[in-house]
Amino acid sequence: MLINCAAYQEGQKLADIPQEAISDYVQRPDCFVWVALKDPEAGELEEMREEFGLHELAVEDARNGHQRPKIEEYGDMLFVVMHLLEMDANEQIRIGEIDVFVGANYVLSLRSRSNISFLNVRDRCEREPHLLKFGSGFVLYALMDAVVDRYFPVINALEQELEQIEDGMFTKESSARDNIEALYALKRKLTVVQHSTTPLLETVHKLFGGRVPQVCVGMHEYYRDIYDHLERIVKQIEALRDVLNTAIQVNLSLISIDDSAITKKFAAYGALFAMPTMIAGVYGMNFDMMPELKWAYGYPLALASMVAMDILLWRRFRKAGWI
Amino acid sequence: MLINCAAYQEGQKLADIPQEAISDYVQRPDCFVWVALKDPEAGELEEMREEFGLHELAVEDARNGHQRPKIEEYGDMLFVVMHLLEMDANEQIRIGEIDVFVGANYVLSLRSRSNISFLNVRDRCEREPHLLKFGSGFVLYALMDAVVDRYFPVINALEQELEQIEDGMFTKESSARDNIEALYALKRKLTVVQHSTTPLLETVHKLFGGRVPQVCVGMHEYYRDIYDHLERIVKQIEALRDVLNTAIQVNLSLISIDDSAITKKFAAYGALFAMPTMIAGVYGMNFDMMPELKWAYGYPLALASMVAMDILLWRRFRKAGWI
Amino acid sequence: MLINCAAYQEGQKLADIPQEAISDYVQRPDCFVWVALKDPEAGELEEMREEFGLHELAVEDARNGHQRPKIEEYGDMLFVVMHLLEMDANEQIRIGEIDVFVGANYVLSLRSRSNISFLNVRDRCEREPHLLKFGSGFVLYALMDAVVDRYFPVINALEQELEQIEDGMFTKESSARDNIEALYALKRKLTVVQHSTTPLLETVHKLFGGRVPQVCVGMHEYYRDIYDHLERIVKQIEALRDVLNTAIQVNLSLISIDDSAITKKFAAYGALFAMPTMIAGVYGMNFDMMPELKWAYGYPLALASMVAMDILLWRRFRKAGWI
Amino acid sequence: MLINCAAYQEGQKLADIPQEAISDYVQRPDCFVWVALKDPEAGELEEMREEFGLHELAVEDARNGHQRPKIEEYGDMLFVVMHLLEMDANEQIRIGEIDVFVGANYVLSLRSRSNISFLNVRDRCEREPHLLKFGSGFVLYALMDAVVDRYFPVINALEQELEQIEDGMFTKESSARDNIEALYALKRKLTVVQHSTTPLLETVHKLFGGRVPQVCVGMHEYYRDIYDHLERIVKQIEALRDVLNTAIQVNLSLISIDDSAITKKFAAYGALFAMPTMIAGVYGMNFDMMPELKWAYGYPLALASMVAMDILLWRRFRKAGWI
Amino acid sequence: MLINCAAYQEGQKLADIPQEAISDYVQRPDCFVWVALKDPEAGELEEMREEFGLHELAVEDARNGHQRPKIEEYGDMLFVVMHLLEMDANEQIRIGEIDVFVGANYVLSLRSRSNISFLNVRDRCEREPHLLKFGSGFVLYALMDAVVDRYFPVINALEQELEQIEDGMFTKESSARDNIEALYALKRKLTVVQHSTTPLLETVHKLFGGRVPQVCVGMHEYYRDIYDHLERIVKQIEALRDVLNTAIQVNLSLISIDDSAITKKFAAYGALFAMPTMIAGVYGMNFDMMPELKWAYGYPLALASMVAMDILLWRRFRKAGWI
Repeated sequence: MLINCAAYQEGQKLADIPQEAISDYVQRPDCFVWVALKDPEAGELEEMREEFGLHELAVEDARNGHQRPKIEEYGDMLFVVMHLLEMDANEQIRIGEIDVFVGANYVLSLRSRSNISFLNVRDRCEREPHLLKFGSGFVLYALMDAVVDRYFPVINALEQELEQIEDGMFTKESSARDNIEALYALKRKLTVVQHSTTPLLETVHKLFGGRVPQVCVGMHEYYRDIYDHLERIVKQIEALRDVLNTAIQVNLSLISIDDSAITKKFAAYGALFAMPTMIAGVYGMNFDMMPELKWAYGYPLALASMVAMDILLWRRFRKAGWI
Repeated sequence: MLINCAAYQEGQKLADIPQEAISDYVQRPDCFVWVALKDPEAGELEEMREEFGLHELAVEDARNGHQRPKIEEYGDMLFVVMHLLEMDANEQIRIGEIDVFVGANYVLSLRSRSNISFLNVRDRCEREPHLLKFGSGFVLYALMDAVVDRYFPVINALEQELEQIEDGMFTKESSARDNIEALYALKRKLTVVQHSTTPLLETVHKLFGGRVPQVCVGMHEYYRDIYDHLERIVKQIEALRDVLNTAIQVNLSLISIDDSAITKKFAAYGALFAMPTMIAGVYGMNFDMMPELKWAYGYPLALASMVAMDILLWRRFRKAGWI
Repeated sequence: MLINCAAYQEGQKLADIPQEAISDYVQRPDCFVWVALKDPEAGELEEMREEFGLHELAVEDARNGHQRPKIEEYGDMLFVVMHLLEMDANEQIRIGEIDVFVGANYVLSLRSRSNISFLNVRDRCEREPHLLKFGSGFVLYALMDAVVDRYFPVINALEQELEQIEDGMFTKESSARDNIEALYALKRKLTVVQHSTTPLLETVHKLFGGRVPQVCVGMHEYYRDIYDHLERIVKQIEALRDVLNTAIQVNLSLISIDDSAITKKFAAYGALFAMPTMIAGVYGMNFDMMPELKWAYGYPLALASMVAMDILLWRRFRKAGWI
Repeated sequence: MLINCAAYQEGQKLADIPQEAISDYVQRPDCFVWVALKDPEAGELEEMREEFGLHELAVEDARNGHQRPKIEEYGDMLFVVMHLLEMDANEQIRIGEIDVFVGANYVLSLRSRSNISFLNVRDRCEREPHLLKFGSGFVLYALMDAVVDRYFPVINALEQELEQIEDGMFTKESSARDNIEALYALKRKLTVVQHSTTPLLETVHKLFGGRVPQVCVGMHEYYRDIYDHLERIVKQIEALRDVLNTAIQVNLSLISIDDSAITKKFAAYGALFAMPTMIAGVYGMNFDMMPELKWAYGYPLALASMVAMDILLWRRFRKAGWI
Repeated sequence: MLINCAAYQEGQKLADIPQEAISDYVQRPDCFVWVALKDPEAGELEEMREEFGLHELAVEDARNGHQRPKIEEYGDMLFVVMHLLEMDANEQIRIGEIDVFVGANYVLSLRSRSNISFLNVRDRCEREPHLLKFGSGFVLYALMDAVVDRYFPVINALEQELEQIEDGMFTKESSARDNIEALYALKRKLTVVQHSTTPLLETVHKLFGGRVPQVCVGMHEYYRDIYDHLERIVKQIEALRDVLNTAIQVNLSLISIDDSAITKKFAAYGALFAMPTMIAGVYGMNFDMMPELKWAYGYPLALASMVAMDILLWRRFRKAGWI
């Protein structure tokens, strides 16, 4: 579905143009076309391939979707794949994808499986004509910047999730089983986020370090800034993973400690039953000569001694922290 | 066993040729021969070595089989070893091997221990004469692309296997012992797949980055595309391994939790027995003066108190989640 | 909040200057201005941006705060971000930030969320005019040196914390639950410190190895010295992490050992009850012909045998280390 | 002990020569001497040092023995240290060492603490005069190839050992204690093999990649082949280690599972005793009014109810898989 | 404290010289001064700084002590920091430090917190005038060689310690608690040794690979030899660490196994008590009609059946390996 299609010159928007006019504008030097598609169909992609003269392999990747984040050069064209991450209402991560084709005088962005809109990126670019003069390279920067900035709330949500689990773990407010399930689910999410961000970090480097693609020339500081943001995200993820792995180990220790506490508790209560049972057994013996049995206060004394010894035991267990 | 033997020129098939004619066609410039063998015998290999003038060490590797995936240059010739992976009916992985010798005007592929056919690769090449014009380098690309594409279903099968185990783990539908055996078996399979794919990733780089073998010149984007697919596979495997290791740890926690639950359950039931036994012990004592024993309702009261206390205990244990 | 604003020439302080005069002094060759701000507001930052002509992206980073430690070049300007670490009264780590903009003839430092003062750095610089002649590059060195030196007491505090936990672990002075919570909290702190220091180590290298920014030229040994201190810190952290991970594992073993000891203890005491109960049970049987029951000393003998066997058992358990 | 000492020219053996004649032959261009010693004594080593003019430090290493595998250049001379691995009758690994000094026209090999003979290497070389023409560089290749080929059976033995342990683990044919001891012993052996092979892999690279020592020039493919074999070995070891680490974790899970199963079993049997004991306790009470006691069938009914309830319990436990 | 101060020329000792004469001798070409201090005080250090013209930062490092091992160049001067490791009588590791300043014609060594003497290094140098001709570079080599050689006995002591723990672990000669404490202590020591040796390995490389400091020129093989020894040490440590980590895991398994064995044992003995108690309970019931009670041999038969069933159970438990 075509979202937007406009031509720009000297940092100013010329006009919204019809799809058929694209190839005309692409010819004009000092002018570039910016097209945005959403969940494009095979037919639309094929038209775009012809209008812009895109490389077969890149278009095939875009058609198949589910690529790893990457930046590839096909001659003068850049093909950029990024993941779009959202937290849905159930705290699950939704992964969308944005594929961007960037040439000297065009930017074509294809957004798939995501509701994240990039209209504000277009607004920002049009508000900053002194930067938009850089042409398609600045549009790519603005798109990447917007994508990467959306990663931060996702990471922060995962960090909060971990903190909640930690609280539950140490205060015993949640069961060990719930904790371990939550830790595992978090690990799964982290793995997803990591595989959306780490490859992008690795690949962004080629936009500002060493030999740089033609469209990115002169924008060194801007792409380095994206790299810097990505690195922060990636390091946050690594730290989270590290802490998470420790949390899983620690949780196992906590389970063992609880287990041990319950064993003690039950064993202690067992002793409270076993003691009177033993005394009762003694006075249940059938010896002819058991003087206590004849005493008037034998029975109450026996009962009293049972209770007394249980109280004694109970106190000791209490003191030892077992009950 | 000779599967196929044909000569190509200018991207078009010239003819199926007999084995003896190979050396004639190999002489002709602008022409290349494409030979496919299956489970070749020592004699066939020796003939091929002579027809194409292959290097002794490469042929020895092909004869021995069970090589690691690799790409080696012997002068102008490329020697490529790849693994062929299939899931058999019992969800076990079968590892075959394809060895490819590529020279300026020949491609010789040897397939061993595998039923994966590459006839469709030949079809594809013959349908794309504008690419087949690249010569043997494109055939190599098409073969590699086909091999690598077959890895995806295997990885996906392993991912599904993991998800099934996870479901069983958390829903208690399968026993802890089955889970741990399944996790271990999955680890074993992952190790196999990893050792079939990771070395290939490392070695494919030399076909498009930096100095490139003569036969691959001009196909930069195509070999990079294979690298990209392989990287996706390798990263998926790494993610799987990582999750799998966590799953093994988590499973241990779940075992401890279950163990603890059962300990509690038994201890609770033990108390339900111990309580009446203690009371019965008391009234089994032989004191002369035990007024309760004379009461008409002593016995039913004693029984009632046993039942009442057990109900009380049972409720408490129930509330605590132990029973 | 403006803390300090002064101009220097030839290693000597010229004068404290008003904020408006900054741009005048910055023009003069052989002279540099050193401005220190604390928790700067947006307006102050904007003024500074204009006075010094700072790059938009760097100022934006400073405005947002919470950056990773880094050193970035914007043309001739260096932008340095460092974390300030303090242990507060509750042994928690407080993270502040210092952002430094360094040009050929200015140093602008912005300190945020921290009470660590850098007045002593200014004193030191003014006491060493032969070094201050190096200009803004030496001021940057002096600031970095001061920041890095503050990391050592934090690391040492964490090392002591680990040693205390270790003592508690092996002497059983603290509970397993406290130990595991303390180990986890320490892990968390270590992660924080690591993410404040490791990125700085990686980035400091560019101030003395290979091509060096203009302001740092000739100060090779000084920046290498900072690198050396940072490396010591980073390696100490790594060693701590490593030992900490082992401590968490070891603690799990200790929990298991204690658990096992308690199981033994309770089982042993259980036997001390079960033995007399069994004997009492035997003499509670109602057989007509039980000669012992008629003996005058039957009862005391039975009691004695109970006690004797319990003493025997108790000794054996004692010897085996179970009680 | 001198094993062998011969001179070669143009790929042909000239003659077995006495030790004293070595220095004469070493002078002659196009001719090289190949000497093999076994467990050499200090005196022999000293003689060789003089005959060949070996470097002091290399000779000292050879004298001390127990070196890490390495390849060092001393001017034109290569000094190669490799480990010789054998499985002895008790499935223990014996580590021997072979030190090789290679110059333009000599090869001196010193074998220590090993029964692996290299006579077949000499035979192979003499059977392939077209390769032996390469001179001492080919002899070195042939020796290294022979050493590396002997590593494969050792690795395979370790793989089989792991598979046996796995079988025992999952079929319960061997005890948990035996499994864990076997896994640990295997880990130890793997560590030994790894430290014999990995350093060699790292160092072999210098014989075919980049600048190559003079004696190895022109043998690129051959040394790369050794590298390839070594890499296969090293990767096999890494895979083994990885699986082994998982096996140790899995074994711990299996121990926990078994432990849990036994706890259940005993607790279940405990209930089978506790139930009749409780009933017997009830009918052992001394109330005057217990009508059941008067019934003619009271006793058999009581016994029957005990048995019946135990059968009931037994069935439930059986069904739950606890007995 | 000044230990030694002598001047050398052409590989020969000229004379012991007074401290004040140092600067005179340092001027003379082809002559070098070798000074050794032990636990130097601030004053001594300051004098040396002036005599030799040492760099401020290096002297400050030496004054502070507790540096990481490192090799730094200050202009033509080398500043080398190494750790001195000793095992004291309690098998604890004592860490001393030796700081060496090396210039074209001087060597100044400062030894701190260690009793390891280097007089034998001076002896060795004076016995090898043909090497001592290399000047201060050879003295540095000899010192480093001596320091590194002292690491071997420390590593070997740690290896033996591990082997002792292993023996205790598998033979049950030592308690699980002692094992785990010993393993942890060993881990601690290994961490110490690793942080004394690994940084040195990394830094030694600059003395023989690539561009080499002036004083080390021509001694390539000698410094590489030190590197080789250090690498052996570092790899031994890594192997030890790896085995140690496994040992800690294995020990946890062994604890679980023992725990399980004791659970079985106690449960089995529990059954041996529970069985007679149950039978006694049955014959303690007060039914009027219990024919066995009337039999003359009822009592002995009951006792006999108790004993018989216990023997039966005992045998079964014995067979199952539980007792």
